[in-house]
Amino acid sequence: MGRNMYYALIMAGGVGTRLWPLSRRDRPKQALRLVGERTMMQHAVDRLAPLFHPEQVFVVARGEYVPILSSQVPELPPENFVVEPEGRGTGPAIGLGAIHLLRQDPEAIMAVLTADHFITDTARFRRVLTAAAQVAAEGHLVTLGIKPSSPSTGYGYIEQGKGLDEVEGFPTFRAERFTEKPNPETAAHMVESGEYSWNSGMFVWRADRIVEEFQRQMPEFYAQLAEVEAALGTPGYGPTLKRIWPQVAKQTIDYGVMEGAEDVTVIPVDIGWLDVGSWASLPELLPADEAGNVAVGQHVEIDTRNTLVFAGNEKRLIATIGLEGLVVVDTEDALLICAKEREQDVRAMVKRLEEMGRGEWL
Amino acid sequence: MGRNMYYALIMAGGVGTRLWPLSRRDRPKQALRLVGERTMMQHAVDRLAPLFHPEQVFVVARGEYVPILSSQVPELPPENFVVEPEGRGTGPAIGLGAIHLLRQDPEAIMAVLTADHFITDTARFRRVLTAAAQVAAEGHLVTLGIKPSSPSTGYGYIEQGKGLDEVEGFPTFRAERFTEKPNPETAAHMVESGEYSWNSGMFVWRADRIVEEFQRQMPEFYAQLAEVEAALGTPGYGPTLKRIWPQVAKQTIDYGVMEGAEDVTVIPVDIGWLDVGSWASLPELLPADEAGNVAVGQHVEIDTRNTLVFAGNEKRLIATIGLEGLVVVDTEDALLICAKEREQDVRAMVKRLEEMGRGEWL
Repeated sequence: MGRNMYYALIMAGGVGTRLWPLSRRDRPKQALRLVGERTMMQHAVDRLAPLFHPEQVFVVARGEYVPILSSQVPELPPENFVVEPEGRGTGPAIGLGAIHLLRQDPEAIMAVLTADHFITDTARFRRVLTAAAQVAAEGHLVTLGIKPSSPSTGYGYIEQGKGLDEVEGFPTFRAERFTEKPNPETAAHMVESGEYSWNSGMFVWRADRIVEEFQRQMPEFYAQLAEVEAALGTPGYGPTLKRIWPQVAKQTIDYGVMEGAEDVTVIPVDIGWLDVGSWASLPELLPADEAGNVAVGQHVEIDTRNTLVFAGNEKRLIATIGLEGLVVVDTEDALLICAKEREQDVRAMVKRLEEMGRGEWL
Repeated sequence: MGRNMYYALIMAGGVGTRLWPLSRRDRPKQALRLVGERTMMQHAVDRLAPLFHPEQVFVVARGEYVPILSSQVPELPPENFVVEPEGRGTGPAIGLGAIHLLRQDPEAIMAVLTADHFITDTARFRRVLTAAAQVAAEGHLVTLGIKPSSPSTGYGYIEQGKGLDEVEGFPTFRAERFTEKPNPETAAHMVESGEYSWNSGMFVWRADRIVEEFQRQMPEFYAQLAEVEAALGTPGYGPTLKRIWPQVAKQTIDYGVMEGAEDVTVIPVDIGWLDVGSWASLPELLPADEAGNVAVGQHVEIDTRNTLVFAGNEKRLIATIGLEGLVVVDTEDALLICAKEREQDVRAMVKRLEEMGRGEWL
């Protein structure tokens, strides 16, 4: 397998509602500086740099996000942005990316990656991508599993079956079963057994193999995708995509393909992977003081514990007295103060503002 | 007693540290819009308007606050601002005001009033001021007592002794004793007995009578005051005041005079009097929703209870989820989030910022 055959497809579709008020309709999660000076999109591209040339890195994103995202990673060729007229879930997004890659290279191997996860051990991440490409070259579907650090009920799990050959030092297994987000007892049992990985949503496969799976398992979508593919490179492409895409049924790659796929290899890895899905996940990425407080920006506190303070403006002071377990997110025009255990309700707050017609804050 | 003999002296000396971050070194409590569109200073002058001509209204304030305060009440003659080089407590402030009034009118009756209290029933307030002036004209020291609405430990109490003549419908009593802030048991006992008023810090007396009391009870201060008085109306006044005032011992009028005065009349009244000393006092002045939340500004909440949100900027949204019993004060450059039961520690926060040398937030 030559280097020219390997491509990265970064899924940058999400809005990141649970990161409101930092995330907005016109400033999706991928465009945010959550950790350090680089945005999530920039981190996602940066960590690929030593392994992929910019020409090999593709991004799937909704049309309205392309300007802000492409401006953040100017090293990527503009034509490497695969534009979705609207989001139809990870299944169709991957399908659209796959036909673009196949047109460029019929033997393309594609790594499906994400922009909304943080990866600490980027060197190991690139090594496992290299190993996975070897397995994928033989026609297998590869999924990167994350060694669970806790019995989380927030992720899907992958059961490891029969052990397969080690590849470049990485043990590999037949993926026996994909399990959706479990209840706490099931999660505890799975983590104890040592035979389950978290489903990271990162996959490596030959582009033609995943299209085969669409044909077998999502035939309706496959037909729609074929119609789009036929228009690729012609003036009719845009209109065709715009016509077809709204008819495509929303589907995740997990439900639509992975759960029913027959030849899936899982490579469990420990790459310091963290889902930055909501405010409560951020403290895992940033240094905390002795009282468990994590602060980005100017924070002065008295008797404050286990509290996250995230300030977009370095000149504003956030002073806290006698607080416990809060999330404080301060932006130019909106401030969120939320009990940590209620952080899932940030979504409900966004919905409330929608219902109130307060688009200026969305 | 003619109207020309009656003067109001508004004490506007405090900084209002416990109202930080709205109050600042250059924006004292009296200059703040806490309730409605008018500042505390403006409220203090407004409620006197039907009773006093602007020429009869004097203000004692520290020099650095005079520009902002005088700009807020342009109807007062500039020379009616009695400037203290630095604050020495209510005793010396009243003494300084008294000699200014005496120079204008040797038979002046003065109502010592405050700018940091809110009064709901302003008509009744003016009626009691009128009644008190009649008592004061006869040489008595009058103190306005507030009928206690709760066994507060935050105020001083005045014990009512022998009943005196009713004046314009107001019962009056000999003031038997001034008691400092009591413990909860004592406070409960005093309120139950019905024989105690809160000490409002508002007094009415002839200016010459209070100077007599200074002579009798605070002879050292009286001598200093006499030296300042001798320079009144001469070019030496400013330099003399500047030299003498730092040597004056700090003293409150309560400790220094009232506790030892022999001829004090208390008039207990119910005028909807509220001390706006700290953030926790504000909810008493503003309408609350069913969950006990009080909001000034744009507040959208989910499951938030008993929380005060005070936003200086009408365009910023403050969104809260799952909070209970907090104070949130949002200003342009500083945000305070404080547990209500810790509101006294706002003072400690200001001290902390001083120690950190962060004058930009003070």
